[in-house]
Amino acid sequence: MPTRPDPVAAADDEARALARSLIDGATHAALAVTDPADGTPGISRIALGRAPDGGLLTLVSALAPHHAALKAHPACAVMLGEVGAKGDPLTHPRLMVKARASFIAPDDPARPALRDHWLIHHPKAKLYVDFGDFAFVRLTPLSALLNGGFARAFRLSPEDLG
Amino acid sequence: MPTRPDPVAAADDEARALARSLIDGATHAALAVTDPADGTPGISRIALGRAPDGGLLTLVSALAPHHAALKAHPACAVMLGEVGAKGDPLTHPRLMVKARASFIAPDDPARPALRDHWLIHHPKAKLYVDFGDFAFVRLTPLSALLNGGFARAFRLSPEDLG
Repeated sequence: MPTRPDPVAAADDEARALARSLIDGATHAALAVTDPADGTPGISRIALGRAPDGGLLTLVSALAPHHAALKAHPACAVMLGEVGAKGDPLTHPRLMVKARASFIAPDDPARPALRDHWLIHHPKAKLYVDFGDFAFVRLTPLSALLNGGFARAFRLSPEDLG
Repeated sequence: MPTRPDPVAAADDEARALARSLIDGATHAALAVTDPADGTPGISRIALGRAPDGGLLTLVSALAPHHAALKAHPACAVMLGEVGAKGDPLTHPRLMVKARASFIAPDDPARPALRDHWLIHHPKAKLYVDFGDFAFVRLTPLSALLNGGFARAFRLSPEDLG
């Protein structure tokens, strides 16, 4: 097979701005995990938002399969960016972030600030945010790929998402 | 930790009908794969449709990271079902399917029928469906989970999706 040119470009200011706006506009995302039962990929929809420090945060139920998966294998990936009503779905921008999950303990002194900030952007979550089986989970980005449509892919660093 | 009741119910006719309608209405999905570089989860947006026999099908570019991932690790998971504009995003139904990927060779005698059927539901794909670096990939379901909103989860078999 002949060598191909790398189809992924280095991030520029436009790519960084688009990635940040996708995160700022996201209330949910798709999450890829490793299924602890057999090591194969699993996928779920999660709530997504930023922590007060700009980091990525989710709120998960202990009843959800990805709760056990993230406990067993913190390496995960999230995708965000909605598909609009028109055109080829693959031309709509989306951001894929490889990340590492870390659970926030119920008595973590940082939790109250995370909780209050979360409820600004996820007001419906006040119905369950304080249930004992819900936990905040930080998703610390390791790398990211922005796909702005066909042949418009960019590699981003964690700093680019800030 | 005390034993919890299983939060996932067996499929009923309503769950089967919802799962099938989500598939029938889907033109794209989120795909979870195993990244061949390091074995961690990867995630991508893919085009999705049914094959003429009702099975799940996608069309992928060899330039997409999930192409190499599926070649190396055919076990994957797809999620479909859009989030509506209103309410908590986690109350909108979505279907998660664990599947096994198999690539359709360019000279596979089945390809012309797959291609023609695909273009009915993905008309914009006629711009690239015949490019040499695009391949159809069957995603054969192994099991599925339907989440119809909080506390409304159902386990489905491959037959339930047909």
